[in-house]
Amino acid sequence: WLWSCRSYIMRYIIQFADQKQEFNKRPTKIGRRSLSRSISQSSTDSYGSAASYTDSSDDETSPRDKQQKNSKGNGDFCIKNIKQADFGRREIEIAEQEMPALMALRKRAQGEKPLAGAKVVGCTHITAQTASTCESAVLMETLTALGAQCRWAACNIYSTQNEVAAALAEGGFSVFAWKGESEDDFWWCIDRCVNLEGWQPNMILDDGGDLTHWIYKKYPNMFKKIKGIVEESVTGVHRLYQLSKAGKLCVPAMNVNDSVTKQKFDNLYCCRESILDGLKRTTDVMFGGKQVMVCGYGEVGKGCCAALKAMGSIVYVTEIDPICALQACMDGFRLVKLNEVIRQVDIVITCTGNKNVVVREYLDRMKNGCIVCNMGHSNTEIDVASLRTPELTWERVRSQVDHVIWPDGKRIVLLAEGRLLNLSCSTVPTFVLSITATTQALALIELYNAPEGRYKQDVYLLPKKMDEYVASLHLPTFDAHLTELSDEQAKYLGLNKNGPFKPNYYR
Amino acid sequence: WLWSCRSYIMRYIIQFADQKQEFNKRPTKIGRRSLSRSISQSSTDSYGSAASYTDSSDDETSPRDKQQKNSKGNGDFCIKNIKQADFGRREIEIAEQEMPALMALRKRAQGEKPLAGAKVVGCTHITAQTASTCESAVLMETLTALGAQCRWAACNIYSTQNEVAAALAEGGFSVFAWKGESEDDFWWCIDRCVNLEGWQPNMILDDGGDLTHWIYKKYPNMFKKIKGIVEESVTGVHRLYQLSKAGKLCVPAMNVNDSVTKQKFDNLYCCRESILDGLKRTTDVMFGGKQVMVCGYGEVGKGCCAALKAMGSIVYVTEIDPICALQACMDGFRLVKLNEVIRQVDIVITCTGNKNVVVREYLDRMKNGCIVCNMGHSNTEIDVASLRTPELTWERVRSQVDHVIWPDGKRIVLLAEGRLLNLSCSTVPTFVLSITATTQALALIELYNAPEGRYKQDVYLLPKKMDEYVASLHLPTFDAHLTELSDEQAKYLGLNKNGPFKPNYYR
Amino acid sequence: WLWSCRSYIMRYIIQFADQKQEFNKRPTKIGRRSLSRSISQSSTDSYGSAASYTDSSDDETSPRDKQQKNSKGNGDFCIKNIKQADFGRREIEIAEQEMPALMALRKRAQGEKPLAGAKVVGCTHITAQTASTCESAVLMETLTALGAQCRWAACNIYSTQNEVAAALAEGGFSVFAWKGESEDDFWWCIDRCVNLEGWQPNMILDDGGDLTHWIYKKYPNMFKKIKGIVEESVTGVHRLYQLSKAGKLCVPAMNVNDSVTKQKFDNLYCCRESILDGLKRTTDVMFGGKQVMVCGYGEVGKGCCAALKAMGSIVYVTEIDPICALQACMDGFRLVKLNEVIRQVDIVITCTGNKNVVVREYLDRMKNGCIVCNMGHSNTEIDVASLRTPELTWERVRSQVDHVIWPDGKRIVLLAEGRLLNLSCSTVPTFVLSITATTQALALIELYNAPEGRYKQDVYLLPKKMDEYVASLHLPTFDAHLTELSDEQAKYLGLNKNGPFKPNYYR
Amino acid sequence: WLWSCRSYIMRYIIQFADQKQEFNKRPTKIGRRSLSRSISQSSTDSYGSAASYTDSSDDETSPRDKQQKNSKGNGDFCIKNIKQADFGRREIEIAEQEMPALMALRKRAQGEKPLAGAKVVGCTHITAQTASTCESAVLMETLTALGAQCRWAACNIYSTQNEVAAALAEGGFSVFAWKGESEDDFWWCIDRCVNLEGWQPNMILDDGGDLTHWIYKKYPNMFKKIKGIVEESVTGVHRLYQLSKAGKLCVPAMNVNDSVTKQKFDNLYCCRESILDGLKRTTDVMFGGKQVMVCGYGEVGKGCCAALKAMGSIVYVTEIDPICALQACMDGFRLVKLNEVIRQVDIVITCTGNKNVVVREYLDRMKNGCIVCNMGHSNTEIDVASLRTPELTWERVRSQVDHVIWPDGKRIVLLAEGRLLNLSCSTVPTFVLSITATTQALALIELYNAPEGRYKQDVYLLPKKMDEYVASLHLPTFDAHLTELSDEQAKYLGLNKNGPFKPNYYR
Repeated sequence: WLWSCRSYIMRYIIQFADQKQEFNKRPTKIGRRSLSRSISQSSTDSYGSAASYTDSSDDETSPRDKQQKNSKGNGDFCIKNIKQADFGRREIEIAEQEMPALMALRKRAQGEKPLAGAKVVGCTHITAQTASTCESAVLMETLTALGAQCRWAACNIYSTQNEVAAALAEGGFSVFAWKGESEDDFWWCIDRCVNLEGWQPNMILDDGGDLTHWIYKKYPNMFKKIKGIVEESVTGVHRLYQLSKAGKLCVPAMNVNDSVTKQKFDNLYCCRESILDGLKRTTDVMFGGKQVMVCGYGEVGKGCCAALKAMGSIVYVTEIDPICALQACMDGFRLVKLNEVIRQVDIVITCTGNKNVVVREYLDRMKNGCIVCNMGHSNTEIDVASLRTPELTWERVRSQVDHVIWPDGKRIVLLAEGRLLNLSCSTVPTFVLSITATTQALALIELYNAPEGRYKQDVYLLPKKMDEYVASLHLPTFDAHLTELSDEQAKYLGLNKNGPFKPNYYR
Repeated sequence: WLWSCRSYIMRYIIQFADQKQEFNKRPTKIGRRSLSRSISQSSTDSYGSAASYTDSSDDETSPRDKQQKNSKGNGDFCIKNIKQADFGRREIEIAEQEMPALMALRKRAQGEKPLAGAKVVGCTHITAQTASTCESAVLMETLTALGAQCRWAACNIYSTQNEVAAALAEGGFSVFAWKGESEDDFWWCIDRCVNLEGWQPNMILDDGGDLTHWIYKKYPNMFKKIKGIVEESVTGVHRLYQLSKAGKLCVPAMNVNDSVTKQKFDNLYCCRESILDGLKRTTDVMFGGKQVMVCGYGEVGKGCCAALKAMGSIVYVTEIDPICALQACMDGFRLVKLNEVIRQVDIVITCTGNKNVVVREYLDRMKNGCIVCNMGHSNTEIDVASLRTPELTWERVRSQVDHVIWPDGKRIVLLAEGRLLNLSCSTVPTFVLSITATTQALALIELYNAPEGRYKQDVYLLPKKMDEYVASLHLPTFDAHLTELSDEQAKYLGLNKNGPFKPNYYR
Repeated sequence: WLWSCRSYIMRYIIQFADQKQEFNKRPTKIGRRSLSRSISQSSTDSYGSAASYTDSSDDETSPRDKQQKNSKGNGDFCIKNIKQADFGRREIEIAEQEMPALMALRKRAQGEKPLAGAKVVGCTHITAQTASTCESAVLMETLTALGAQCRWAACNIYSTQNEVAAALAEGGFSVFAWKGESEDDFWWCIDRCVNLEGWQPNMILDDGGDLTHWIYKKYPNMFKKIKGIVEESVTGVHRLYQLSKAGKLCVPAMNVNDSVTKQKFDNLYCCRESILDGLKRTTDVMFGGKQVMVCGYGEVGKGCCAALKAMGSIVYVTEIDPICALQACMDGFRLVKLNEVIRQVDIVITCTGNKNVVVREYLDRMKNGCIVCNMGHSNTEIDVASLRTPELTWERVRSQVDHVIWPDGKRIVLLAEGRLLNLSCSTVPTFVLSITATTQALALIELYNAPEGRYKQDVYLLPKKMDEYVASLHLPTFDAHLTELSDEQAKYLGLNKNGPFKPNYYR
Repeated sequence: WLWSCRSYIMRYIIQFADQKQEFNKRPTKIGRRSLSRSISQSSTDSYGSAASYTDSSDDETSPRDKQQKNSKGNGDFCIKNIKQADFGRREIEIAEQEMPALMALRKRAQGEKPLAGAKVVGCTHITAQTASTCESAVLMETLTALGAQCRWAACNIYSTQNEVAAALAEGGFSVFAWKGESEDDFWWCIDRCVNLEGWQPNMILDDGGDLTHWIYKKYPNMFKKIKGIVEESVTGVHRLYQLSKAGKLCVPAMNVNDSVTKQKFDNLYCCRESILDGLKRTTDVMFGGKQVMVCGYGEVGKGCCAALKAMGSIVYVTEIDPICALQACMDGFRLVKLNEVIRQVDIVITCTGNKNVVVREYLDRMKNGCIVCNMGHSNTEIDVASLRTPELTWERVRSQVDHVIWPDGKRIVLLAEGRLLNLSCSTVPTFVLSITATTQALALIELYNAPEGRYKQDVYLLPKKMDEYVASLHLPTFDAHLTELSDEQAKYLGLNKNGPFKPNYYR
């Protein structure tokens, strides 16, 4: 199943790439495949990365056909152009300033080298979120500083920033990635990471599950020496749970996607800002006085509602869960059914995780100029397909913005074709990426150092205490000072002074 | 242990009652014993209940010595004065309007009589929260409407509103409660509930654990026919967990205190309003521009901080848990240690659940006029004892408000002597009480109708689905309209269309 | 006209006093007569003042019939009981701590004695707003510290706190006031202030215009030596403008009611807090999720809306002025006509300054339990008279709270019989009183020291610069640090470094 | 003086244009010259206008050397390329949808043709704010619909969108404007508007004062027939006041820049949104938990503070005016001096209207990564010149974003080189533009139709009633329903039922 899914996705990517030729500014988001995968993808499309300053060479030779060596004579890598290393190094240095938690981790753990002996194969984005971020590079160098050996491939065919890859290669990393890989290149790169004479990886850091999948298919015996898998994406985690259910998971795996800290930041806090940003960048809409329909009042919906209310919008909420519904009421939002207000609202935002929440029937009844977008994980919430009928005209007015025009002239403003707005049309703050990368590093340390028997062949959440540790590493950014329990207080509360401070289920 | 604890508390109550003679407006909060118990206690003290309009009779005869019958000739009750029934009935009728969820439950479940055959002994407050609420009465009559037979005692010696008890007696209920019971009366009333020829209770509804305790002590054999215990208070739940741990719990018990809905309302939403109310009623302080120290950023702290920020206060937060700390940062509060700002703040509020959070050292350094109060469950957070030293003068300036005066003239304004501010100096909204009562009723239905084996001799949380049901019963209050899943959507999400919609651990 | 108005009011007061006998807890607010007058009036009724601790003497002798002397042998005063001076002094001392601006003024201006030679007759509240405030006393002693001689009467027959009057008398002030004066007493006291052999006042400080009126009637020649009038109340200012229009104003007058600082605090900031406080104290309503209708979006409406929105209410606004209406939209409130939402709202609040905003027709259509109250200056906004018809039953359920019951059982909860909620059922923060008193003092200084010709026989607003000075005196309360212009910046902006910083019309 | 000022500005523009050659993405904001002038200027630079889709022709012939006719054979215009008319028409049609107030005005006033006989010469931006706005075109066509004849030039050499100009020319308008005029072209175009055989303009609509200036210089006799000037910009208004002071203003002039509605929207509501937008687009900064210094608490500062507080930032404020300072306190912001917190803040925003607010000394003490930007009208607030010293390195990291790097590696992130952030790096919402254009149209109607003697040779604010009318025309956008006064209420309030509802000075 996994493989066929893979093939389907590849077909989809290729089909998309073709479309891209036609529609110059068309986004290239890869559908539902993977949340994290899509991040750099979409932002690469929407905004020119720093790469554009130097990457205008017309060098069409495939990196696979080139022989390159870094300044120390090492050639165990495959990237676009080693000469771009200096530019990439500057990018990495700027990124280091914005990821203080990883730098702190580097410093604190360095003496003890908790990853000494670790041989990590990784498959993540080798990218710059914005002109000044390259979290994977900082992560990779952090793991090395903690004692690990690493080999790395990209988890997305578009998301690699060539200069950053060059800087890593120059620094001695075995990196196999470039921007614009073919499907064949993609798997070739992964294979080069894994398959090297005399190299037996003992840890996997994956984002999307492709690397894990490849080893399962091609080198199942490798798992004998592998101590664990750290997986970052929704899709990858889903695959691991299926393997586990089927009894086929043969090493412990850590689900870092669902750690409390990451979730709160990915959803509530990140969306509170990115809903505003995504709407402004695409439509320049003024929020004050606008009537907004937010479908779903989970963490994402809570963030969207809070932000829009603060900006002077009048917000309506739909919910299916009475507990969330009651919270919406107490937070000051009218709880309605979509059909009650659909004719009057100026903006419709979906964040339910459900499908077909906004269907053609509702789109038909929206008023002229209504903006429709999706903040949920998948692009199923708005039934975009139902809009691709002959009587409706589509007009691309900006990157990520389509006017869908009804026969009577009514225009609906559809953003990002119903894909995740904040990934397509906004940026993910470095801070959220920093939390993710720190969580990944700690998960590797935990799995690598766990005593025999602590973890079985199953999927685990990061232990509460490590989750708390990730949070604590980010407090200095805010000049925030934590209070420590006295011995007497710790005893009174029945807690260890160093945490964990809450039960695992606490959110 | 339980018994000695009981005795200690009784001594405490009596001692308090004595003090009350002296200090006319002195509060009579009963320490840490029980959250819910304290509710009506404190509010009875702070605000005249409706009882005061009619209860001025100088009738000093003990109810135990009276022979009373209701208009139908029934005398199986013991209350202050059956003639007050009319007034009490009016109070109940007003309360019914404010507890629409119970009324809806009555209506919906009436056809099927889900409690047919249930014989419930109950021990809760027979009281009016405010002049227009008497939730226990409405609950009792609801249970009856659902088919149950009930016998009832009060869980607090002060909290009974005599008129309401009279109305219940007149309506045919076997009620044993009056305002101002002695300790002996208290147990006598409980015993009369339980111990009646030909009466074998099969359900217990307790608030504080005293009724449960009494049956354990005196009639342990009764448990053979009892299908379960529903317990409301923190203390009572704590006792049940201890029994369970000790292997002595002999029937299933339902912890309704920790249901999601109740918790959210008791803490976040209720405190958001009551912190303002409590501070205003006691000190008339203007919130705008005030610097406030909130210790602890759990649900209670979050509610307090949000409210004060909205009113224009500048709020600082202390935390021990880095995850909560990071949330405080993202919500816009400076995270500090208490000693960094103690000299400059105008108000200090504790809501940690911890002890000795505000100690004498900090009190010494506060500025003149600083207001100090506690929103946490117990009165241990502020070290009030440390203020009872000879060099400090206490001056009671209002009910619940003491000025503690330093030798140099500095005054600290201490509220409710460090007890829970929102119970001592504010009121608990009917809405929160309604959620509690509805949860109790559903828990009784669940335990009574559960198939053999669903519940063992352990303490359970209310099933998620019932929690959701409680919430849904309260939505009409807000004219809130829930969206229903289509079959297709339910399948897509892997959910039952009627819920539960979230995993049990979801908060 | 003034006199007949006066008589009407007196009849009204007396009539009210009679009603008071009947309805024990009935408020005694004096209609539209005067805003400031009503303040202490209503709060004195609603909440026991500190006076109640000591004022239980059954001494029925009229103060006019007593011969009292203070400890220095001075008898030029007329108060209830000089023996209460100690208690009053303590009240004053506590109040001083809460009025730092007056104390600062005392300190700063003391060296120069800007009021040396001033002979001030005053007619204000001699009262304690709460147990710990007595602003008039602090003001009076401040004026004296600045060099003035003062004689004082009360501007309200109920609002005097006898202990405070005693303390002032003991301190050597010629005070003529006690709680519960008759109409005759009232004018007698004023006359005693003004009419003394060898005493020629040269400044008037009035609150309501009665003192000014009396001098006009009885001693018109006195105005030859009077340098100016400082008037505090809406009513008094109105009278002055009428005199001015009629060409009868013979000295300059300062309208301190409309100074920017005072207005902002009286309206926006004060109401933001008092709407919540007033509703909670009377009804214990939970704000979260409630639908609220706010009529009028001026400063008062803005404050109410902001507070309720922050507490989780859903707020609708009505307006007649399109500019305010557009502001309501941009601030996130739906702008409706009253009849569009009247059936669905839980609370209706008027703050328009208009009359008959909520008429019987709307009251008939409100839902059961709807709370109706007024935050506007006069009690004309809700047509309360229309509710006094035979088919409706009134039920007083608490002080200031009436249930009006329709034949079908529907109840409307009417607060303060439609009078100003925040004065009847809440408290005015000391901070606002402090701003008022400071403004009065500065206005006296300005008028007294103004060079010949600066002020003509007209009504003036406080000069911008003095308004700014009042504000600056209150900044230390918030530990707020003002930035000073450099010479270069002042030149660039064309401003004096010490202000005024804005044109007079700036709000 | 005006002329020399003009020359200076032109030199500045030319000098700037030269720089532009060098720094490709360098902004071309024209300093302090004019606020409104700068609007389209800067946004044209920052974001490609729709023009870029069609404007890539390499046609270098000056429009002055071309002979073009529209499809009806009319050639009285001078624009880039008449063939672009269709594209421009579509842009105008989309803009019409976003300017409902002008469309409503067109509809309402059409019957009576209030501008019949008016001959308007105009000099404004002929531009598209965003891909979908061209307010001037809509305004021009509205004036024509109301009966006026118009001739038009552009008020900025860069801001014309050629396609829109083409569409206007095709529609029969005499337009003289193209993108990239020289200084000589600029005056030539203005002259062509004014100077035509048989054309005597009787109304002037100006934005910046250049058209007015030209007529003063070259055709002073024209003023004999001119009924009035409507001026939009800060600079133009300033010039008019100087003319008036000097006794040289020979016709009435209407200052539409300072109308209440426009001011509120330009400052408070617009800045509340644009501060977030401007910061996000340039830096992707996460607002949550950031410490922000806002200098100045006028309307702009209030908007910035409210928005950032709502997003979870901790905001400090500096002020020189104690009244604004006290408001900052009451709104929950710590009032500090800049030097108290300069080392700890993450973002510094100036909005004082003052100069040298953030000087080198403060920039030296900021922490690494601190973002510095200006929301005030002029670029004098941050002393940017002081940063152009040899020891500091400037690095342009994005359009509008410079890193200024200290010798120790510290980087300050300077936005828009200290120019107005919201104009350089954000967009001005159509709604604000709509209010401006509507105000201009109404001012023209008022001046043109005013009876002899209503307006003298002076500068006037728009009458309150018209200001209210502008607001009322925008209410339907929000589906907002205004309440009307009854006759009785209007009488009670002493108001006309149709307004004005407030005194002129009311803000």
